[in-house]
Amino acid sequence: MSGCLYIVGLGPADEKWLTLEAQEALAQAQDIIGYDPYVARVPMRPGQTRLASDNRVEIDRAREALARTAQGRVVAVVSGGDPGVFAMAAAVFEAVDHGPKEWRALDIRVLPGVSAMQAAAARLGAPLGHDFCAISLSDNLKPWSVIEKRLEHAARGDFVIALYNPASRARPTRIADAFALLRRLLPGETLVSFAKAVGREKEEIILTRLDEADTSLIDMSTLVVIGASGTKRIAREGARDWVYTSRKAE
Amino acid sequence: MSGCLYIVGLGPADEKWLTLEAQEALAQAQDIIGYDPYVARVPMRPGQTRLASDNRVEIDRAREALARTAQGRVVAVVSGGDPGVFAMAAAVFEAVDHGPKEWRALDIRVLPGVSAMQAAAARLGAPLGHDFCAISLSDNLKPWSVIEKRLEHAARGDFVIALYNPASRARPTRIADAFALLRRLLPGETLVSFAKAVGREKEEIILTRLDEADTSLIDMSTLVVIGASGTKRIAREGARDWVYTSRKAE
Repeated sequence: MSGCLYIVGLGPADEKWLTLEAQEALAQAQDIIGYDPYVARVPMRPGQTRLASDNRVEIDRAREALARTAQGRVVAVVSGGDPGVFAMAAAVFEAVDHGPKEWRALDIRVLPGVSAMQAAAARLGAPLGHDFCAISLSDNLKPWSVIEKRLEHAARGDFVIALYNPASRARPTRIADAFALLRRLLPGETLVSFAKAVGREKEEIILTRLDEADTSLIDMSTLVVIGASGTKRIAREGARDWVYTSRKAE
Repeated sequence: MSGCLYIVGLGPADEKWLTLEAQEALAQAQDIIGYDPYVARVPMRPGQTRLASDNRVEIDRAREALARTAQGRVVAVVSGGDPGVFAMAAAVFEAVDHGPKEWRALDIRVLPGVSAMQAAAARLGAPLGHDFCAISLSDNLKPWSVIEKRLEHAARGDFVIALYNPASRARPTRIADAFALLRRLLPGETLVSFAKAVGREKEEIILTRLDEADTSLIDMSTLVVIGASGTKRIAREGARDWVYTSRKAE
């Protein structure tokens, strides 16, 4: 029997963001492997094995999934959002790259999903409507100087910036450091949005400006969007303003 | 009766990338509005009005959708990929921003979808596994100098770069100009991928390097991914190599 490894994007939080392809793979899989809260989002099916693990053991989890696939099992590794964006797909291919040669012959399929920044953007309006970048503020695997360099070029290039992993219990001051850097390079009136727990019960959207943004409001569930020069706010009465990035630039 | 405007992402090409939310909105809509090939992808339903138009009339299409919503109709504006990424959501909010004040009171909902770069990344492996940016090479609405500036900062910031709209009948040399700029800034061995018509019958993936890339192979259906320093290629026998971006950086 030949195994298959699906790397499945569950989308951010709400089941309605699941694709048809992802649903089918989850129904077929014999083993569901992932970070605990993501595994918990997969509907239970009789006979399926579920292996939930901690957030910080991505490579171990990837190896376990690959080993089971090599034994002929149909395995689904699940990620919130899109597995290809700051998630399990890179961890699986990294494990393949450094693992036994047989793993290169496996049938591995990445099934894309709606990423956190897309769900956040949808709630805000259309802030990613023009050139943008996505930067993870986690310095677990890269030095802070690399993150600073990327923030600086993102600001100087006038990109809309989506910040992933903006808060960490281990390094709570990093987000303030990032904002201090951006404040040196961008105008104070630059639009800033915090999209918290999008699609979940505690969803909250905060619209502010770079010079007034209170970074203490940012937690691990927050996707931060820093506007570009073309990002505009549409004032509304009795409803939250919309944010979009004009497709025009001067 | 109160209208509603859904801005719906159909995902790239294949129906299996549609979300549950998008399916429901398409089933409810009285009017389906969009660029002709996207409207053609929506299953026909009795009683639904379909307004297909040309690619270049995005703002007219947005205004038509808003006017119908203001009349109390349930309208779906459809985009390929994610409507929030280089697509109709920004056009709709731009039309609201410059339109009659009543439009600001409308019920407008953006329904995110899998974007072209995510589908391309899924086919390639995990090239967007770490910090990346997305740049449209279309200079219909912005001067080429802005695109050059963004390409330069993206390269200097060591971002993975996804290029949207890389080819245009009106300006066929732009993609060669972009590659010439990138070749001055990045090493020749930088991994480059062309993902053509992903999810469609004529899907084709080309893996190459910056110094060897043949830009004449790029057409309007191509999503171009330029690797960063951490982007690696996993050699395979009898199958296409995988490309992923390591989560680590030095």
